[in-house]
Amino acid sequence: MTQSLLQDIKVTKTENSKISQVDFNNLSFGSTFSDHMLVCDYKNGTWEAPEVIPYQPISLDPSSKIFHYGQSIFEGMKAYKDENGDVFLFRPLDNFKRLNISAKRLAIPELPEAFFMEGLKTLLEVDKNWIPTTQGSSLYIRPFVFASGKGFHASPADAYKFIIATAPSGSYFAGKVKVLIEEKYSRSANGGVGYAKAGGNYAGQFYPTQLAVAKGYNQVIWTDDNKHEYIEEAGAMNIFVRINDSLLTAPTNDRILDGITRKSIIEIAKQEGINVEVRPISVTEVVNAAKNGSLKEMFGAGTAAVISPISVFGYQGTDYTLPELDNDYASSLKKRITDIQYNRSEDPFGWRIKL
Amino acid sequence: MTQSLLQDIKVTKTENSKISQVDFNNLSFGSTFSDHMLVCDYKNGTWEAPEVIPYQPISLDPSSKIFHYGQSIFEGMKAYKDENGDVFLFRPLDNFKRLNISAKRLAIPELPEAFFMEGLKTLLEVDKNWIPTTQGSSLYIRPFVFASGKGFHASPADAYKFIIATAPSGSYFAGKVKVLIEEKYSRSANGGVGYAKAGGNYAGQFYPTQLAVAKGYNQVIWTDDNKHEYIEEAGAMNIFVRINDSLLTAPTNDRILDGITRKSIIEIAKQEGINVEVRPISVTEVVNAAKNGSLKEMFGAGTAAVISPISVFGYQGTDYTLPELDNDYASSLKKRITDIQYNRSEDPFGWRIKL
Repeated sequence: MTQSLLQDIKVTKTENSKISQVDFNNLSFGSTFSDHMLVCDYKNGTWEAPEVIPYQPISLDPSSKIFHYGQSIFEGMKAYKDENGDVFLFRPLDNFKRLNISAKRLAIPELPEAFFMEGLKTLLEVDKNWIPTTQGSSLYIRPFVFASGKGFHASPADAYKFIIATAPSGSYFAGKVKVLIEEKYSRSANGGVGYAKAGGNYAGQFYPTQLAVAKGYNQVIWTDDNKHEYIEEAGAMNIFVRINDSLLTAPTNDRILDGITRKSIIEIAKQEGINVEVRPISVTEVVNAAKNGSLKEMFGAGTAAVISPISVFGYQGTDYTLPELDNDYASSLKKRITDIQYNRSEDPFGWRIKL
Repeated sequence: MTQSLLQDIKVTKTENSKISQVDFNNLSFGSTFSDHMLVCDYKNGTWEAPEVIPYQPISLDPSSKIFHYGQSIFEGMKAYKDENGDVFLFRPLDNFKRLNISAKRLAIPELPEAFFMEGLKTLLEVDKNWIPTTQGSSLYIRPFVFASGKGFHASPADAYKFIIATAPSGSYFAGKVKVLIEEKYSRSANGGVGYAKAGGNYAGQFYPTQLAVAKGYNQVIWTDDNKHEYIEEAGAMNIFVRINDSLLTAPTNDRILDGITRKSIIEIAKQEGINVEVRPISVTEVVNAAKNGSLKEMFGAGTAAVISPISVFGYQGTDYTLPELDNDYASSLKKRITDIQYNRSEDPFGWRIKL
């Protein structure tokens, strides 16, 4: 049905594949790029037909609004290959829907569903051999849209580019992280763009994160910008806190991204019989729980790392160490979600899509 | 002294000047670009020597971080030509300093002063004939820096481009504007990047502005993101309010840009003997002043439009009309600042720099 908007997507294959130069056993995250990309231009008030072309540089006028006014949005997804060589996506329609939610907030024209979904499938078919198969690896998929239209006037552009590029990536896991609960800097405003996957949300995090790194932490836990009373996100991930046997996460709002890993974790945890509370989590509550021993776990959740467990959090000059558990939620929830993603288990939720 | 860092800047002139194709009597704002641009690359931990080259497209890898994580900052300045053909800049060192303040907050490497100042002067020397001379026109100057480094990892780039492009522009004045005091959306967070001239700050304004335009307004007056109690900026400009004979403007903070036109207006007004109050301005105060007749003027202040007078403001469904005055501050302050900029008067402040 979604195909009705499209003729077949035009594919121009590269004559110089780079695939033989890639060591698929030693992939870092998002730094090796596949042979092709999907490109789609918005001009004269409409999105033109997408095409698959060789991965290549983009040429832009110096006045293109992406350089000046930050109109850029993106998504992060993965393609997984199972033992039989079949390829799977995880809730891709949710990425498409969120891209258009971001588009609306950033005054970027929304994309037709078929251009995204069929474009993605065509690209993955062409670059199927780029999907790695070593433990924990996947093809990281980066759909993004930016303002290519020209002019120094501070107004929405009249031209945009939608691109999907992919990067075979190894397991992101890099051990547990030390985090700092932020008391000065903020990620997003009430009534701002924090719920959108907009480029500017990330650029603003780098400097406060550098300051935290200089103090010996890996990452910042973002709090509300008003009084820094509530914890909201962990770096570029959503945050979960386990107090006793309850799993807590902040509700989505206009400051917090509606993470696909986040909402999947919530559903899996509920199915496992875990008491899940989606509500504001105060810093005071977390500190008190750490002091009285009821704080069992904290972890970030996002597409790239899936689940990123926290070993220590710092707040007002004190470091609080999380316990080492035998049966932690982080490990069991990560296993459940990745088993679904890699087609190693049943998918009772209907999230997995075979290519 | 600033020249000591530099050998002469290398200049490569175009063989195909576009200048004969430009109608200098009918210039819009920021949509015609001069023949040359200054480019400067940051690589391997250092800013390389700037060069002047023909204005031309920029080629970037699809994974360049500008497309994904919003690391971009800019400045807005003008070059003015007087009756004798001499060229002047207005407080250019302040633009340079602010660019580096923005750079720091966006985790972009700071620029050497000489690269900016001598680069700018060299570029203007080369494109001197592009500076228009009709009433109210000027050469709009756009210095900008963005992340060109590659990779999908959400971290600061390892390569950047600093570019100065210029655009001969006509007078920006387009009559008085109707503005809407914003009650839902916000421009910036406490602890955020609102004080930086970062691309993302502008992209986030487009959608709320479109909603205001659909209601019949030209622009949004931004308020604090917490309770929308205080007025902070007018569109992409700073805001001034005249109550009786006092001129009020919000203090700069981490949400408000330290505008060069704003601070020049403050100094000129003080020299004129006007009572200037730099303090938070509540919406309630402005509404009450409109009701009791003490609200005399409201205007935006910024480089592009200099001063943009407001005719009407809307708040909670009511429109409040500003009076028409014979001796308004907006006109006299605009005349004073532009007379200094165009070398039509003395410059007691030492702001004007002859090229």
